[in-house]
Amino acid sequence: MTRTALYQQMQLKKSYLCVGLDTDIHRIPKHLLQLEDPIFEFNKQIIDATKELCIAYKPNIAFYESLGTKGWEALEKTMDYIPKTHFTIADAKRGDIGNTSKMYAKAFFENMNFDAVTVAPYMGIDSVSPFLEYDNKWVILLALTSNEGSHNFQMLPQEDGQPLYVHVMQKAMEWGSPDKLMFVLGATHPEKFENLRTIAPKHFFLVPGIGAQGGDLQAVSTYASNSEIGILVNSSRGIIYASHGEDFAEKAQAAALKIQQEMAVLF
Amino acid sequence: MTRTALYQQMQLKKSYLCVGLDTDIHRIPKHLLQLEDPIFEFNKQIIDATKELCIAYKPNIAFYESLGTKGWEALEKTMDYIPKTHFTIADAKRGDIGNTSKMYAKAFFENMNFDAVTVAPYMGIDSVSPFLEYDNKWVILLALTSNEGSHNFQMLPQEDGQPLYVHVMQKAMEWGSPDKLMFVLGATHPEKFENLRTIAPKHFFLVPGIGAQGGDLQAVSTYASNSEIGILVNSSRGIIYASHGEDFAEKAQAAALKIQQEMAVLF
Repeated sequence: MTRTALYQQMQLKKSYLCVGLDTDIHRIPKHLLQLEDPIFEFNKQIIDATKELCIAYKPNIAFYESLGTKGWEALEKTMDYIPKTHFTIADAKRGDIGNTSKMYAKAFFENMNFDAVTVAPYMGIDSVSPFLEYDNKWVILLALTSNEGSHNFQMLPQEDGQPLYVHVMQKAMEWGSPDKLMFVLGATHPEKFENLRTIAPKHFFLVPGIGAQGGDLQAVSTYASNSEIGILVNSSRGIIYASHGEDFAEKAQAAALKIQQEMAVLF
Repeated sequence: MTRTALYQQMQLKKSYLCVGLDTDIHRIPKHLLQLEDPIFEFNKQIIDATKELCIAYKPNIAFYESLGTKGWEALEKTMDYIPKTHFTIADAKRGDIGNTSKMYAKAFFENMNFDAVTVAPYMGIDSVSPFLEYDNKWVILLALTSNEGSHNFQMLPQEDGQPLYVHVMQKAMEWGSPDKLMFVLGATHPEKFENLRTIAPKHFFLVPGIGAQGGDLQAVSTYASNSEIGILVNSSRGIIYASHGEDFAEKAQAAALKIQQEMAVLF
Protein backbone atom coordinates (compact mmCIF):
# COMPACT_ATOMS: atom_id res chain seq x y z
CA MET A 1 0.00 0.00 0.00
CA THR A 2 1.30 3.47 -0.82
CA ARG A 3 1.65 6.32 1.67
CA THR A 4 -1.12 8.21 -0.14
CA ALA A 5 -3.53 5.27 -0.04
CA LEU A 6 -2.88 4.79 3.67
CA TYR A 7 -3.53 8.47 4.39
CA GLN A 8 -6.74 8.33 2.32
CA GLN A 9 -8.01 5.41 4.37
CA MET A 10 -7.32 7.38 7.52
CA GLN A 11 -9.26 10.39 6.25
CA LEU A 12 -12.14 8.23 5.09
CA LYS A 13 -12.56 6.60 8.49
CA LYS A 14 -11.32 9.41 10.71
CA SER A 15 -9.16 6.79 12.31
CA TYR A 16 -5.55 5.79 12.70
CA LEU A 17 -6.33 2.71 14.72
CA CYS A 18 -4.45 -0.53 14.15
CA VAL A 19 -6.00 -3.63 15.72
CA GLY A 20 -3.42 -6.08 17.02
CA LEU A 21 -4.33 -9.71 16.43
CA ASP A 22 -2.44 -11.26 19.37
CA THR A 23 -4.77 -14.22 19.22
CA ASP A 24 -4.07 -16.62 22.07
CA ILE A 25 -5.79 -20.00 22.11
CA HIS A 26 -5.89 -19.80 25.93
CA ARG A 27 -7.65 -16.44 26.00
CA ILE A 28 -10.30 -16.69 23.29
CA PRO A 29 -13.89 -17.50 24.30
CA LYS A 30 -14.43 -21.15 25.19
CA HIS A 31 -17.36 -21.64 22.79
CA LEU A 32 -14.99 -21.19 19.81
CA LEU A 33 -12.77 -24.11 20.82
CA GLN A 34 -15.15 -26.70 19.39
CA LEU A 35 -14.74 -25.23 15.89
CA GLU A 36 -12.22 -26.59 13.41
CA ASP A 37 -10.02 -23.48 13.42
CA PRO A 38 -10.81 -21.43 16.54
CA ILE A 39 -7.99 -18.93 15.93
CA PHE A 40 -9.22 -18.03 12.45
CA GLU A 41 -12.86 -17.95 13.58
CA PHE A 42 -11.95 -15.52 16.37
CA ASN A 43 -9.98 -13.29 13.97
CA LYS A 44 -12.79 -13.38 11.40
CA GLN A 45 -15.34 -12.13 13.90
CA ILE A 46 -12.96 -9.48 15.26
CA ILE A 47 -12.29 -8.25 11.72
CA ASP A 48 -16.01 -8.16 10.85
CA ALA A 49 -16.68 -6.18 14.02
CA THR A 50 -13.84 -3.64 13.71
CA LYS A 51 -13.09 -3.13 10.02
CA GLU A 52 -15.11 0.09 9.71
CA LEU A 53 -13.27 1.62 12.67
CA CYS A 54 -9.62 0.80 11.97
CA ILE A 55 -7.22 1.23 9.08
CA ALA A 56 -4.79 -1.57 9.87
CA TYR A 57 -4.43 -5.05 11.34
CA LYS A 58 -1.30 -6.32 13.00
CA PRO A 59 -1.08 -10.09 13.59
CA ASN A 60 1.55 -10.82 16.23
CA ILE A 61 3.45 -13.65 14.57
CA ALA A 62 4.61 -15.29 17.83
CA PHE A 63 1.06 -16.25 18.71
CA TYR A 64 0.65 -18.16 15.44
CA GLU A 65 4.13 -19.67 15.47
CA SER A 66 3.52 -21.07 18.95
CA LEU A 67 0.84 -23.32 17.42
CA GLY A 68 3.09 -24.79 14.71
CA THR A 69 1.63 -25.58 11.29
CA LYS A 70 -1.94 -25.06 12.52
CA GLY A 71 -1.09 -21.53 13.63
CA TRP A 72 0.58 -20.80 10.35
CA GLU A 73 -2.54 -21.95 8.48
CA ALA A 74 -4.76 -19.75 10.65
CA LEU A 75 -2.46 -16.80 9.88
CA GLU A 76 -2.64 -17.43 6.13
CA LYS A 77 -6.44 -17.62 6.26
CA THR A 78 -6.60 -14.45 8.35
CA MET A 79 -4.48 -12.60 5.79
CA ASP A 80 -6.82 -13.74 2.99
CA TYR A 81 -9.79 -12.50 5.00
CA ILE A 82 -8.57 -8.98 5.85
CA PRO A 83 -10.08 -6.51 3.34
CA LYS A 84 -7.64 -5.11 0.75
CA THR A 85 -8.45 -1.61 1.99
CA HIS A 86 -6.62 -2.33 5.24
CA PHE A 87 -2.91 -1.95 5.87
CA THR A 88 -1.42 -5.22 7.19
CA ILE A 89 1.55 -5.47 9.51
CA ALA A 90 3.43 -8.68 10.31
CA ASP A 91 4.61 -7.98 13.85
CA ALA A 92 7.59 -10.27 13.62
CA LYS A 93 10.59 -8.23 14.87
CA ARG A 94 12.80 -10.03 12.35
CA GLY A 95 16.34 -9.11 11.29
CA ASP A 96 19.30 -11.25 10.21
CA ILE A 97 22.21 -11.25 7.76
CA GLY A 98 21.30 -10.30 4.18
CA ASN A 99 20.57 -13.70 2.65
CA THR A 100 18.40 -14.59 5.65
CA SER A 101 16.46 -11.31 5.86
CA LYS A 102 15.72 -11.86 2.18
CA MET A 103 13.98 -15.12 3.13
CA TYR A 104 11.93 -13.38 5.84
CA ALA A 105 10.94 -10.70 3.32
CA LYS A 106 9.81 -13.45 0.97
CA ALA A 107 7.77 -15.11 3.73
CA PHE A 108 5.87 -11.97 4.69
CA PHE A 109 5.78 -9.90 1.48
CA GLU A 110 5.42 -12.57 -1.21
CA ASN A 111 3.86 -15.65 0.37
CA MET A 112 1.49 -13.73 2.62
CA ASN A 113 1.27 -10.30 1.00
CA PHE A 114 1.68 -8.23 4.16
CA ASP A 115 2.13 -4.49 3.56
CA ALA A 116 4.70 -4.13 6.33
CA VAL A 117 6.90 -6.06 8.71
CA THR A 118 8.44 -4.97 12.01
CA VAL A 119 12.23 -5.28 11.96
CA ALA A 120 14.82 -5.17 14.77
CA PRO A 121 17.76 -2.83 14.02
CA TYR A 122 20.59 -4.48 15.98
CA MET A 123 22.20 -6.19 12.96
CA GLY A 124 22.28 -3.03 10.83
CA ILE A 125 21.90 -2.21 7.17
CA ASP A 126 22.04 -5.61 5.47
CA SER A 127 19.44 -6.95 7.91
CA VAL A 128 17.02 -4.17 6.91
CA SER A 129 17.68 -3.50 3.22
CA PRO A 130 16.17 -6.74 1.79
CA PHE A 131 12.79 -5.61 3.15
CA LEU A 132 13.18 -2.16 1.55
CA GLU A 133 13.62 -3.57 -1.94
CA TYR A 134 9.91 -4.25 -2.44
CA ASP A 135 7.71 -1.56 -4.03
CA ASN A 136 4.87 -0.29 -1.85
CA LYS A 137 5.98 -2.45 1.07
CA TRP A 138 7.17 -1.08 4.39
CA VAL A 139 9.76 -1.66 7.08
CA ILE A 140 8.65 -0.68 10.57
CA LEU A 141 11.91 -0.45 12.46
CA LEU A 142 12.09 -0.72 16.24
CA ALA A 143 13.31 2.58 17.65
CA LEU A 144 11.93 3.09 21.17
CA THR A 145 9.72 0.22 22.28
CA SER A 146 6.96 0.26 24.89
CA ASN A 147 8.36 -2.32 27.31
CA GLU A 148 10.44 -2.17 30.48
CA GLY A 149 13.51 -3.50 28.65
CA SER A 150 13.55 -0.43 26.39
CA HIS A 151 15.64 1.17 29.16
CA ASN A 152 18.43 -1.41 28.91
CA PHE A 153 19.99 -0.56 25.56
CA GLN A 154 17.73 1.73 23.50
CA MET A 155 18.18 4.59 25.96
CA LEU A 156 21.92 4.18 26.51
CA PRO A 157 23.66 7.51 25.89
CA GLN A 158 26.14 7.38 23.03
CA GLU A 159 29.40 9.31 22.79
CA ASP A 160 27.52 12.45 21.69
CA GLY A 161 25.09 12.18 24.62
CA GLN A 162 22.15 11.14 22.42
CA PRO A 163 20.45 7.84 23.22
CA LEU A 164 20.90 4.81 20.96
CA TYR A 165 17.36 4.97 19.56
CA VAL A 166 18.06 8.43 18.12
CA HIS A 167 21.13 7.07 16.33
CA VAL A 168 19.04 4.17 15.03
CA MET A 169 16.45 6.56 13.62
CA GLN A 170 18.99 8.92 12.05
CA LYS A 171 20.96 6.12 10.42
CA ALA A 172 17.84 4.32 9.16
CA MET A 173 16.54 7.53 7.57
CA GLU A 174 19.55 7.28 5.23
CA TRP A 175 18.29 3.85 4.16
CA GLY A 176 14.55 4.35 3.72
CA SER A 177 12.31 7.30 2.80
CA PRO A 178 9.03 8.20 4.55
CA ASP A 179 7.34 6.25 1.73
CA LYS A 180 8.63 2.90 2.98
CA LEU A 181 10.07 3.27 6.45
CA MET A 182 8.17 3.75 9.71
CA PHE A 183 9.41 3.59 13.30
CA VAL A 184 8.03 1.82 16.36
CA LEU A 185 7.63 4.27 19.23
CA GLY A 186 6.04 3.04 22.43
CA ALA A 187 3.10 5.00 23.87
CA THR A 188 4.69 4.56 27.29
CA HIS A 189 7.27 7.30 26.58
CA PRO A 190 5.05 10.37 25.96
CA GLU A 191 7.75 12.80 27.13
CA LYS A 192 9.88 11.75 24.14
CA PHE A 193 7.31 12.28 21.35
CA GLU A 194 8.01 15.92 20.48
CA ASN A 195 11.72 15.35 20.12
CA LEU A 196 11.14 12.24 18.02
CA ARG A 197 8.83 14.14 15.71
CA THR A 198 11.54 16.77 15.26
CA ILE A 199 14.06 14.08 14.33
CA ALA A 200 11.73 12.42 11.81
CA PRO A 201 9.07 14.95 10.74
CA LYS A 202 7.59 12.91 7.89
CA HIS A 203 7.97 9.25 8.82
CA PHE A 204 4.98 7.36 10.14
CA PHE A 205 5.25 6.09 13.72
CA LEU A 206 3.62 2.83 14.76
CA VAL A 207 2.65 3.38 18.38
CA PRO A 208 1.94 0.32 20.54
CA GLY A 209 1.31 0.42 24.27
CA ILE A 210 -2.03 2.13 24.81
CA GLY A 211 -4.50 0.07 26.83
CA ALA A 212 -3.02 -2.96 28.62
CA GLN A 213 0.47 -1.41 28.69
CA GLY A 214 -0.75 1.92 30.11
CA GLY A 215 0.02 4.48 27.35
CA ASP A 216 -2.18 7.55 26.91
CA LEU A 217 -3.89 8.00 23.52
CA GLN A 218 -4.42 11.72 23.94
CA ALA A 219 -0.73 12.41 24.63
CA VAL A 220 0.26 10.30 21.61
CA SER A 221 -2.22 12.08 19.33
CA THR A 222 -1.19 15.54 20.51
CA TYR A 223 2.59 15.18 20.45
CA ALA A 224 3.43 12.42 17.96
CA SER A 225 1.14 13.24 15.02
CA ASN A 226 2.06 15.45 12.05
CA SER A 227 0.04 17.30 9.40
CA GLU A 228 -0.69 14.03 7.57
CA ILE A 229 -1.61 12.22 10.81
CA GLY A 230 1.73 10.39 10.78
CA ILE A 231 0.81 7.80 13.42
CA LEU A 232 -0.77 4.38 13.54
CA VAL A 233 -1.85 3.65 17.09
CA ASN A 234 -2.14 -0.01 17.96
CA SER A 235 -4.38 -1.65 20.50
CA SER A 236 -4.39 -5.41 20.89
CA ARG A 237 -5.58 -6.81 24.22
CA GLY A 238 -7.80 -3.78 25.02
CA ILE A 239 -9.91 -4.56 21.95
CA ILE A 240 -9.74 -8.27 21.21
CA TYR A 241 -10.12 -9.33 24.84
CA ALA A 242 -12.66 -6.67 25.84
CA SER A 243 -14.87 -9.64 26.71
CA HIS A 244 -14.13 -13.34 27.08
CA GLY A 245 -17.77 -14.31 26.56
CA GLU A 246 -19.96 -14.94 23.53
CA ASP A 247 -20.29 -11.17 23.11
CA PHE A 248 -16.53 -10.76 22.45
CA ALA A 249 -16.99 -9.32 18.94
CA GLU A 250 -19.62 -6.85 20.07
CA LYS A 251 -17.45 -5.70 22.98
CA ALA A 252 -14.41 -5.46 20.69
CA GLN A 253 -16.42 -3.22 18.39
CA ALA A 254 -17.42 -0.99 21.31
CA ALA A 255 -13.79 -0.73 22.47
CA ALA A 256 -12.62 0.12 18.95
CA LEU A 257 -15.41 2.68 18.53
CA LYS A 258 -14.40 4.42 21.74
CA ILE A 259 -10.83 4.77 20.46
CA GLN A 260 -11.93 5.84 16.96
CA GLN A 261 -14.12 8.58 18.45
CA GLU A 262 -11.17 9.94 20.42
CA MET A 263 -9.15 9.86 17.20
CA ALA A 264 -11.76 11.68 15.13
CA VAL A 265 -10.88 15.04 16.72
CA LEU A 266 -7.55 15.06 14.83
CA PHE A 267 -9.33 15.23 11.44
CA MET B 1 20.98 -30.14 27.19
CA THR B 2 23.24 -29.24 30.12
CA ARG B 3 26.59 -27.51 29.83
CA THR B 4 28.31 -30.70 31.01
CA ALA B 5 26.54 -32.88 28.44
CA LEU B 6 27.48 -30.46 25.66
CA TYR B 7 31.13 -30.45 26.73
CA GLN B 8 31.12 -34.26 26.89
CA GLN B 9 29.84 -34.48 23.33
CA MET B 10 32.64 -32.17 22.23
CA GLN B 11 35.29 -34.31 23.92
CA LEU B 12 33.80 -37.50 22.50
CA LYS B 13 33.94 -36.22 18.93
CA LYS B 14 36.90 -33.85 19.20
CA SER B 15 34.65 -31.34 17.55
CA TYR B 16 32.88 -28.07 18.26
CA LEU B 17 31.29 -27.91 14.83
CA CYS B 18 27.71 -26.78 14.39
CA VAL B 19 26.17 -27.48 10.99
CA GLY B 20 23.82 -24.73 9.83
CA LEU B 21 20.73 -26.04 8.05
CA ASP B 22 20.05 -23.01 5.83
CA THR B 23 18.15 -25.25 3.46
CA ASP B 24 17.05 -23.32 0.39
CA ILE B 25 14.67 -24.99 -2.07
CA HIS B 26 16.45 -23.12 -4.90
CA ARG B 27 19.90 -24.39 -3.97
CA ILE B 28 19.38 -28.07 -3.15
CA PRO B 29 20.17 -30.69 -5.81
CA LYS B 30 17.57 -30.91 -8.57
CA HIS B 31 17.04 -34.67 -8.21
CA LEU B 32 15.49 -34.12 -4.76
CA LEU B 33 12.73 -31.87 -6.08
CA GLN B 34 10.63 -34.78 -7.30
CA LEU B 35 10.32 -36.13 -3.74
CA GLU B 36 7.36 -35.29 -1.51
CA ASP B 37 9.37 -33.24 0.96
CA PRO B 38 12.66 -32.21 -0.68
CA ILE B 39 13.72 -29.96 2.22
CA PHE B 40 13.42 -32.73 4.80
CA GLU B 41 15.04 -35.28 2.48
CA PHE B 42 18.01 -32.95 1.99
CA ASN B 43 18.36 -32.36 5.74
CA LYS B 44 18.05 -36.07 6.48
CA GLN B 45 20.93 -36.92 4.16
CA ILE B 46 23.05 -34.03 5.47
CA ILE B 47 22.44 -35.19 9.05
CA ASP B 48 23.30 -38.81 8.21
CA ALA B 49 26.51 -37.66 6.55
CA THR B 50 27.71 -35.24 9.24
CA LYS B 51 26.39 -36.44 12.61
CA GLU B 52 29.64 -38.15 13.65
CA LEU B 53 31.62 -34.98 12.96
CA CYS B 54 29.51 -32.26 14.57
CA ILE B 55 27.97 -31.64 17.97
CA ALA B 56 25.15 -29.29 16.96
CA TYR B 57 22.67 -28.46 14.22
CA LYS B 58 21.30 -24.99 13.62
CA PRO B 59 18.24 -24.72 11.36
CA ASN B 60 17.93 -21.16 10.08
CA ILE B 61 14.24 -20.54 10.68
CA ALA B 62 13.82 -17.97 7.87
CA PHE B 63 14.43 -20.62 5.24
CA TYR B 64 11.56 -22.75 6.56
CA GLU B 65 9.22 -19.84 7.22
CA SER B 66 9.64 -18.66 3.62
CA LEU B 67 7.88 -21.88 2.52
CA GLY B 68 4.82 -21.41 4.75
CA THR B 69 3.17 -24.44 6.33
CA LYS B 70 5.21 -26.86 4.18
CA GLY B 71 8.43 -25.36 5.49
CA TRP B 72 7.19 -25.55 9.04
CA GLU B 73 6.39 -29.25 8.56
CA ALA B 74 9.85 -29.91 7.13
CA LEU B 75 11.37 -28.17 10.16
CA GLU B 76 9.34 -30.27 12.61
CA LYS B 77 10.36 -33.47 10.82
CA THR B 78 14.00 -32.37 10.81
CA MET B 79 13.90 -31.76 14.56
CA ASP B 80 12.48 -35.23 15.11
CA TYR B 81 15.26 -36.70 12.99
CA ILE B 82 18.27 -35.03 14.64
CA PRO B 83 19.81 -37.45 17.18
CA LYS B 84 19.19 -36.59 20.85
CA THR B 85 22.97 -36.49 21.37
CA HIS B 86 23.15 -33.28 19.31
CA PHE B 87 22.60 -29.75 20.56
CA THR B 88 19.91 -28.01 18.51
CA ILE B 89 19.73 -24.27 17.87
CA ALA B 90 16.74 -22.43 16.40
CA ASP B 91 18.46 -19.58 14.58
CA ALA B 92 15.49 -17.27 14.82
CA LYS B 93 16.85 -13.94 16.16
CA ARG B 94 13.59 -13.42 18.05
CA GLY B 95 12.87 -10.87 20.78
CA ASP B 96 9.69 -9.00 21.73
CA ILE B 97 7.81 -7.75 24.80
CA GLY B 98 7.42 -10.30 27.59
CA ASN B 99 4.08 -11.90 26.72
CA THR B 100 5.23 -12.29 23.10
CA SER B 101 8.71 -13.65 23.82
CA LYS B 102 6.95 -16.20 26.00
CA MET B 103 5.06 -17.38 22.91
CA TYR B 104 8.29 -17.67 20.91
CA ALA B 105 9.85 -19.64 23.78
CA LYS B 106 6.86 -21.98 23.67
CA ALA B 107 7.19 -22.41 19.90
CA PHE B 108 10.86 -23.38 19.99
CA PHE B 109 11.34 -24.98 23.43
CA GLU B 110 8.04 -26.80 23.95
CA ASN B 111 6.52 -27.51 20.54
CA MET B 112 9.81 -28.30 18.84
CA ASN B 113 12.15 -29.11 21.73
CA PHE B 114 15.13 -27.04 20.56
CA ASP B 115 17.96 -26.74 23.11
CA ALA B 116 18.62 -23.11 22.25
CA VAL B 117 17.29 -20.11 20.38
CA THR B 118 19.13 -17.06 19.08
CA VAL B 119 17.69 -13.84 20.53
CA ALA B 120 18.18 -10.17 19.54
CA PRO B 121 18.98 -7.91 22.52
CA TYR B 122 17.52 -4.57 21.36
CA MET B 123 14.31 -4.82 23.44
CA GLY B 124 16.12 -5.64 26.68
CA ILE B 125 15.43 -7.81 29.69
CA ASP B 126 11.77 -8.75 29.30
CA SER B 127 12.40 -9.81 25.71
CA VAL B 128 15.11 -12.23 26.89
CA SER B 129 13.97 -13.50 30.30
CA PRO B 130 11.05 -15.72 29.11
CA PHE B 131 13.60 -17.86 27.25
CA LEU B 132 15.79 -18.14 30.37
CA GLU B 133 13.01 -19.62 32.47
CA TYR B 134 13.34 -23.11 30.96
CA ASP B 135 15.64 -25.64 32.63
CA ASN B 136 18.47 -26.90 30.46
CA LYS B 137 17.51 -24.59 27.60
CA TRP B 138 19.70 -21.79 26.29
CA VAL B 139 19.53 -18.24 25.03
CA ILE B 140 22.16 -17.37 22.45
CA LEU B 141 22.15 -13.59 22.48
CA LEU B 142 23.41 -11.52 19.56
CA ALA B 143 26.45 -9.56 20.67
CA LEU B 144 28.78 -8.93 17.71
CA THR B 145 27.44 -10.43 14.50
CA SER B 146 29.39 -11.47 11.41
CA ASN B 147 27.73 -9.19 8.85
CA GLU B 148 28.55 -5.77 7.38
CA GLY B 149 25.73 -4.14 9.36
CA SER B 150 27.42 -5.09 12.65
CA HIS B 151 29.32 -1.79 12.24
CA ASN B 152 26.13 0.33 12.26
CA PHE B 153 25.02 0.02 15.87
CA GLN B 154 26.82 -2.84 17.65
CA MET B 155 30.16 -1.03 17.43
CA LEU B 156 28.90 2.43 18.37
CA PRO B 157 30.97 3.79 21.24
CA GLN B 158 28.92 4.49 24.36
CA GLU B 159 29.53 7.26 26.87
CA ASP B 160 32.31 5.26 28.52
CA GLY B 161 34.02 4.64 25.18
CA GLN B 162 33.10 0.94 25.10
CA PRO B 163 31.13 -0.31 22.11
CA LEU B 164 27.45 -1.23 22.45
CA TYR B 165 28.10 -4.98 22.12
CA VAL B 166 30.26 -4.91 25.27
CA HIS B 167 27.41 -3.26 27.19
CA VAL B 168 25.02 -5.89 25.83
CA MET B 169 27.26 -8.70 27.05
CA GLN B 170 27.89 -7.17 30.47
CA LYS B 171 24.21 -6.48 31.10
CA ALA B 172 23.09 -9.90 29.84
CA MET B 173 25.58 -11.64 32.14
CA GLU B 174 23.50 -10.25 35.01
CA TRP B 175 20.48 -12.09 33.57
CA GLY B 176 21.87 -15.50 32.60
CA SER B 177 24.68 -17.72 33.88
CA PRO B 178 27.17 -19.61 31.67
CA ASP B 179 24.84 -22.58 32.11
CA LYS B 180 22.09 -21.04 29.99
CA LEU B 181 23.41 -18.01 28.14
CA MET B 182 25.74 -17.95 25.13
CA PHE B 183 26.72 -15.06 22.86
CA VAL B 184 26.87 -14.80 19.08
CA LEU B 185 30.28 -13.54 18.00
CA GLY B 186 31.01 -13.34 14.29
CA ALA B 187 34.17 -15.02 13.00
CA THR B 188 34.75 -11.95 10.84
CA HIS B 189 36.03 -9.94 13.83
CA PRO B 190 39.09 -11.98 14.95
CA GLU B 191 40.84 -8.92 16.43
CA LYS B 192 38.06 -8.68 19.02
CA PHE B 193 38.14 -12.27 20.35
CA GLU B 194 40.71 -11.91 23.14
CA ASN B 195 38.92 -8.94 24.66
CA LEU B 196 35.57 -10.70 24.42
CA ARG B 197 36.95 -13.76 26.18
CA THR B 198 38.21 -11.48 28.97
CA ILE B 199 34.73 -9.97 29.34
CA ALA B 200 32.98 -13.35 29.43
CA PRO B 201 35.52 -16.02 30.44
CA LYS B 202 33.03 -18.86 30.95
CA HIS B 203 30.16 -18.28 28.53
CA PHE B 204 29.99 -20.26 25.33
CA PHE B 205 30.29 -18.29 22.09
CA LEU B 206 28.41 -19.34 18.98
CA VAL B 207 30.66 -18.29 16.13
CA PRO B 208 29.15 -17.99 12.65
CA GLY B 209 30.95 -16.62 9.63
CA ILE B 210 33.65 -19.11 8.71
CA GLY B 211 33.47 -20.32 5.12
CA ALA B 212 31.16 -18.31 2.83
CA GLN B 213 31.46 -15.21 5.02
CA GLY B 214 35.28 -15.31 5.12
CA GLY B 215 36.08 -15.92 8.81
CA ASP B 216 39.21 -17.87 9.80
CA LEU B 217 38.72 -21.03 11.88
CA GLN B 218 42.27 -21.04 13.24
CA ALA B 219 42.01 -17.49 14.59
CA VAL B 220 38.67 -18.32 16.22
CA SER B 221 40.02 -21.50 17.82
CA THR B 222 43.17 -19.80 19.11
CA TYR B 223 41.68 -16.63 20.54
CA ALA B 224 38.02 -17.34 21.36
CA SER B 225 38.21 -20.75 23.06
CA ASN B 226 38.60 -21.36 26.78
CA SER B 227 39.70 -24.32 28.91
CA GLU B 228 36.36 -26.06 28.30
CA ILE B 229 36.44 -25.31 24.57
CA GLY B 230 33.82 -22.57 25.04
CA ILE B 231 32.98 -22.16 21.36
CA LEU B 232 30.56 -23.64 18.87
CA VAL B 233 31.73 -22.79 15.38
CA ASN B 234 29.03 -22.82 12.74
CA SER B 235 29.35 -23.54 9.05
CA SER B 236 26.29 -23.58 6.84
CA ARG B 237 26.81 -23.00 3.13
CA GLY B 238 30.41 -24.30 3.13
CA ILE B 239 29.13 -27.72 4.19
CA ILE B 240 25.58 -28.17 2.93
CA TYR B 241 26.28 -26.71 -0.51
CA ALA B 242 29.75 -28.22 -0.97
CA SER B 243 28.22 -29.86 -4.05
CA HIS B 244 24.97 -29.24 -5.90
CA GLY B 245 25.00 -32.69 -7.52
CA GLU B 246 23.88 -36.13 -6.45
CA ASP B 247 27.04 -36.41 -4.35
CA PHE B 248 26.00 -33.51 -2.08
CA ALA B 249 25.92 -35.59 1.12
CA GLU B 250 29.30 -37.15 0.43
CA LYS B 251 30.84 -33.74 -0.28
CA ALA B 252 29.19 -32.27 2.82
CA GLN B 253 30.78 -35.04 4.86
CA ALA B 254 34.20 -34.28 3.38
CA ALA B 255 33.80 -30.57 4.15
CA ALA B 256 32.71 -31.31 7.72
CA LEU B 257 35.59 -33.77 8.19
CA LYS B 258 38.11 -31.16 7.06
CA ILE B 259 36.80 -28.74 9.68
CA GLN B 260 36.62 -31.39 12.42
CA GLN B 261 40.25 -32.36 11.76
CA GLU B 262 41.32 -28.74 12.21
CA MET B 263 39.30 -28.65 15.43
CA ALA B 264 40.81 -31.86 16.84
CA VAL B 265 44.09 -30.09 17.72
CA LEU B 266 42.31 -28.20 20.53
CA PHE B 267 41.59 -31.46 22.44
